[in-house]
Amino acid sequence: MQRVAVIGASGYTGVELLRLLAAHPQAEIVAVTSRQYEGQSISRAFPSLSGFVDRDCESLDVQTIAARADVVFTALPHKSAMAVVPGFLKAGCKVVDLSADYRLHDQHIYEDWYQTHTSPELLEEAVYGLPELYRAQIVGACLVANPGCYPTSVALGLAPLLKERLVDHRSLIIDSKSGTTGAGRGLKEGSLYCEVNEGFKAYGIASHRHTPEIEQTLSQLAGEAVVVNFTPHLLPVDRGILSTIYAQQNSDLTTAELLECFGRYYVNEPFVRVLPEGQLPNIAHVRGTNLCDIGMVADARTGRVVVVSVIDNLCKGAAGQAVQNFNLMTGLDESAGLTMAPLFP
Amino acid sequence: MQRVAVIGASGYTGVELLRLLAAHPQAEIVAVTSRQYEGQSISRAFPSLSGFVDRDCESLDVQTIAARADVVFTALPHKSAMAVVPGFLKAGCKVVDLSADYRLHDQHIYEDWYQTHTSPELLEEAVYGLPELYRAQIVGACLVANPGCYPTSVALGLAPLLKERLVDHRSLIIDSKSGTTGAGRGLKEGSLYCEVNEGFKAYGIASHRHTPEIEQTLSQLAGEAVVVNFTPHLLPVDRGILSTIYAQQNSDLTTAELLECFGRYYVNEPFVRVLPEGQLPNIAHVRGTNLCDIGMVADARTGRVVVVSVIDNLCKGAAGQAVQNFNLMTGLDESAGLTMAPLFP
Amino acid sequence: MQRVAVIGASGYTGVELLRLLAAHPQAEIVAVTSRQYEGQSISRAFPSLSGFVDRDCESLDVQTIAARADVVFTALPHKSAMAVVPGFLKAGCKVVDLSADYRLHDQHIYEDWYQTHTSPELLEEAVYGLPELYRAQIVGACLVANPGCYPTSVALGLAPLLKERLVDHRSLIIDSKSGTTGAGRGLKEGSLYCEVNEGFKAYGIASHRHTPEIEQTLSQLAGEAVVVNFTPHLLPVDRGILSTIYAQQNSDLTTAELLECFGRYYVNEPFVRVLPEGQLPNIAHVRGTNLCDIGMVADARTGRVVVVSVIDNLCKGAAGQAVQNFNLMTGLDESAGLTMAPLFP
Amino acid sequence: MQRVAVIGASGYTGVELLRLLAAHPQAEIVAVTSRQYEGQSISRAFPSLSGFVDRDCESLDVQTIAARADVVFTALPHKSAMAVVPGFLKAGCKVVDLSADYRLHDQHIYEDWYQTHTSPELLEEAVYGLPELYRAQIVGACLVANPGCYPTSVALGLAPLLKERLVDHRSLIIDSKSGTTGAGRGLKEGSLYCEVNEGFKAYGIASHRHTPEIEQTLSQLAGEAVVVNFTPHLLPVDRGILSTIYAQQNSDLTTAELLECFGRYYVNEPFVRVLPEGQLPNIAHVRGTNLCDIGMVADARTGRVVVVSVIDNLCKGAAGQAVQNFNLMTGLDESAGLTMAPLFP
Repeated sequence: MQRVAVIGASGYTGVELLRLLAAHPQAEIVAVTSRQYEGQSISRAFPSLSGFVDRDCESLDVQTIAARADVVFTALPHKSAMAVVPGFLKAGCKVVDLSADYRLHDQHIYEDWYQTHTSPELLEEAVYGLPELYRAQIVGACLVANPGCYPTSVALGLAPLLKERLVDHRSLIIDSKSGTTGAGRGLKEGSLYCEVNEGFKAYGIASHRHTPEIEQTLSQLAGEAVVVNFTPHLLPVDRGILSTIYAQQNSDLTTAELLECFGRYYVNEPFVRVLPEGQLPNIAHVRGTNLCDIGMVADARTGRVVVVSVIDNLCKGAAGQAVQNFNLMTGLDESAGLTMAPLFP
Repeated sequence: MQRVAVIGASGYTGVELLRLLAAHPQAEIVAVTSRQYEGQSISRAFPSLSGFVDRDCESLDVQTIAARADVVFTALPHKSAMAVVPGFLKAGCKVVDLSADYRLHDQHIYEDWYQTHTSPELLEEAVYGLPELYRAQIVGACLVANPGCYPTSVALGLAPLLKERLVDHRSLIIDSKSGTTGAGRGLKEGSLYCEVNEGFKAYGIASHRHTPEIEQTLSQLAGEAVVVNFTPHLLPVDRGILSTIYAQQNSDLTTAELLECFGRYYVNEPFVRVLPEGQLPNIAHVRGTNLCDIGMVADARTGRVVVVSVIDNLCKGAAGQAVQNFNLMTGLDESAGLTMAPLFP
Repeated sequence: MQRVAVIGASGYTGVELLRLLAAHPQAEIVAVTSRQYEGQSISRAFPSLSGFVDRDCESLDVQTIAARADVVFTALPHKSAMAVVPGFLKAGCKVVDLSADYRLHDQHIYEDWYQTHTSPELLEEAVYGLPELYRAQIVGACLVANPGCYPTSVALGLAPLLKERLVDHRSLIIDSKSGTTGAGRGLKEGSLYCEVNEGFKAYGIASHRHTPEIEQTLSQLAGEAVVVNFTPHLLPVDRGILSTIYAQQNSDLTTAELLECFGRYYVNEPFVRVLPEGQLPNIAHVRGTNLCDIGMVADARTGRVVVVSVIDNLCKGAAGQAVQNFNLMTGLDESAGLTMAPLFP
Repeated sequence: MQRVAVIGASGYTGVELLRLLAAHPQAEIVAVTSRQYEGQSISRAFPSLSGFVDRDCESLDVQTIAARADVVFTALPHKSAMAVVPGFLKAGCKVVDLSADYRLHDQHIYEDWYQTHTSPELLEEAVYGLPELYRAQIVGACLVANPGCYPTSVALGLAPLLKERLVDHRSLIIDSKSGTTGAGRGLKEGSLYCEVNEGFKAYGIASHRHTPEIEQTLSQLAGEAVVVNFTPHLLPVDRGILSTIYAQQNSDLTTAELLECFGRYYVNEPFVRVLPEGQLPNIAHVRGTNLCDIGMVADARTGRVVVVSVIDNLCKGAAGQAVQNFNLMTGLDESAGLTMAPLFP
């Protein structure tokens, strides 16, 4: 049994971590922190957890928590995460960090898009926690940087194409749409029900902070520097990301040939489902799970391939992938605690 | 390991049964029937199930299915159910019937609200599958009539009050609101997205078929004939029923005293959560689970108590309760396969 | 042409007032105030208004605004409203106040449910602005207290029954459901998209501040003191209130007889639609309009009548009714600016 | 006063036409046809229209309707439209056809994407009813082919760029998202509430029938043959289309320069709002209106411009634009009946 702590439990990602860990056969939750609800039971703040996780939220004291926990999940905003992660590592904990702080290997790029990094020495050690691409490194890691939600959907949708040089990486256009949990639980007018419901908009065009993270992974896949257009949009749903990805083909493969390539690439992956020709993914079909569904169409008229990839942003895009990484880091079955079928409808 | 068959798998209740049974540690799905998708994989019709339940749908042949299955879940419309349930029983299967066909003990009442009953001899044998009230009978039963969604939310919200004579049963008013999965997957204009979304309406006032079922259970609890006002409404959400129940108190108990009574009554129930004073339930907090959350307020100005009870109509209101009954009928742990925390948000 | 000012334009009610007044043939918007957006164009904050109302928001200076305006709409929270309404009246403006500050005739009741009243001398002068009941007084009024959203739906649903002594007023139970604009545009966790979406809950049971307002009107209709159970709920939709009202009949009228009575009562009302037998109202069918749709069923089994009444909470429940009152106060056609058909879907 | 008939009134487009025409100061509805509701009042089928349009639906008899109507709106599926449009024209009516039957000038392209054309002789005479591009021809036309919803959003988002040769037309990628009214009111599982709600998917990749219509207009703007990637998606909202359009710039214009170009191009257009730099459009801000909002960002890193264009698919994408065309064809003020501000929220 692994003793786990969830740091920053009162965001949507934290609550999702608790939902998954409460049902995990080899995890025991030993600490839950939240500044907002300190001293209160987390299940009073989130009644869905009542009877599942009823611990009181404590303040974030690295030493006292590290003394109890084997593995720490840090579900804090960037900048707040790097204030505590080094302490947990020093105290001997393994860390799955769900913030952006250790995702970018290049300190300068991090500082261009975020702010000064206070523990750059860890950037080399940190492993980017996308198991489908970096499983081997994750297995032995002490610090795993859990990928962003958009980057996860994009990397899985493009990996076979870039790896096998099937598309021109200069042509990549990524049009992504995310459910509103992706905007977090902070109080801002744009997150109010009546501002989101029955609405739809793009935001952060050419400036979203997931751009360099996307480009880092795609560059590693392509073997050269990749620059992309990335446009996120806000969907009036709770959960789900769908990325529609456009790429110019290097040769004229058919949809069937492309699907075959994806099928081979992901043949042993427990959480990637490549859809048969004629079927396209829907965020509703992965809800609540760690799955990534991928479909595609080759457009002979334009020579482009259109890949559609969907995940649950809170699960494969955050907490579920964190549990998958936790499983790998601690030698458990990679799927432990992640085996429920999607909630549909 | 129990071998189970799901008859009528292509409705929302059938799909929910498959979701739950696929994750059940002691159930093995050996047959799935659907007229609509006969010969096709159920996961092609419902891609959420892909990788979890990939069986082909077969036609409903009682003998061949009974030869393979220990327990049969019939998720058919009323009337269709009673055409096959006697056969399954005769062939030695246990049956959890999710239709209305065996819920009413009185054949005449059934025929007043539905149509001629073709196997009235089974009405006596059938056990009404609300474990919180009828657990002992369910344990030994061969045929369990799984309760309706509205009746489940109402019976659990009123049981302690009627059992302990705390309210005047002639005063009962039940105002219920259901998510749209309750309307089924049939094609009718009223179920189209744009007819439901951003709308809200009452329907079936004074005529909904769950009325006699509600009254049957409440009458047993009260020890005399109970007649109620029951008004269902259609909510623009996928899942969830909330029943707001009004009753004149016989004495002037406070909210705290009423809650204490409920707490005692449900103290050993794994799926009922009585909320603390000042907290009211929300359908979002039980989503995807077999839980029933109950809160209440005593209104000193009018002498009435207002009870609010919520369930997931597809789960505790249908498939989840069916699995709970299955567990009881087969001697398994009552909570087996039903232990996930709710999906929130 | 009437010169009008909207005080507190950045709430949902304020924005709805601007939407309606921008299209009103005899109104000219001469001032718009908002503390939050002072100095900015209201259409920058609410892009829907761009090209329709592009005025800059100004600070709330009673004198300078009164000098320009004939009629002032105060769309402020209670307490803030009574800080400015007396000044506008003194300066010669007519006022439609959309807060709760002048709705209750009895200062003590107001102070029991809200707080100290700072201009109680105006309570007698203020007219309760429900035109279907108090049209004659509104016509000559200088200060109209625009009714609350819930009370509007309830009063219109019960007026004929109480007026004609058809029901026992001690039996009244009012189960109301409101869209989320009713919760306002303030920043609170409970109003976030992911907290409301796919959820449904009751709130304020036995304690909602609209209760005394409802009882005041019903008591006037009944000719004696009426006490009710009133339970509001939060619907995951933008707009709309549906009230389901239960009352014990004094005699055994049929649905048809009750509908006939309602039809007579509202025969000349431009904004009340009594639905034919067999049809029940839906909030989606009045969206964006000043209409109130009413349907009902007599339940012979219990002797109760169930009335269902729907309005758009922002329109007939707030801004639309305010414009209707404005029309009456200024001698315009009562329907001026309120003639669009509902937006469906 | 123009006498108008709405043919095919029981689809969402037909109902929207009736909503707009009922409030139109110079239109009188003289006939409403619907096969589904023949002999019933249209307001019984669509209670939102009660009191606004209460005519009985009649069968589609060209002669008797043509005898009463000056202008006919045909809101029929493609193929059904061309069966009646020639008759109405011959009988002397002006026709605004909302189907696809007369939108494509080239009979062969029509027949490649649809089916045999039965009145190809009218293709030359028909004017493509996008007033912002073809106003002069619409003014004198007898037959206007009202544009598709997606093509409208795309053409308005790209016109200035192509007209002024600012982008490479071979690079065009159009990622569009539509509300569910766009799927029509026909009964299919994919349009059920629970299949759409909380879901999001792409469909018709590389094969949607709006593709040739989009390419026809863009080719005329560019002065040479344009081929595009067009991917539609289904949004869980009632109304609204948002198109995100990617194009490689020919020079390196900034966002401000591009916006200035759009501002000039649309300076006199009553229904196009070009948003200031830093603001992006939202479908919620045009709801219920004939407006098209356009925003954009130049991405210096990739040399592409990303244009976002939104309309209400039922209004500017169908019925509203039809009324705009009607106004132009009959010499009325182009904005008559189309002046309400958007319904927000």
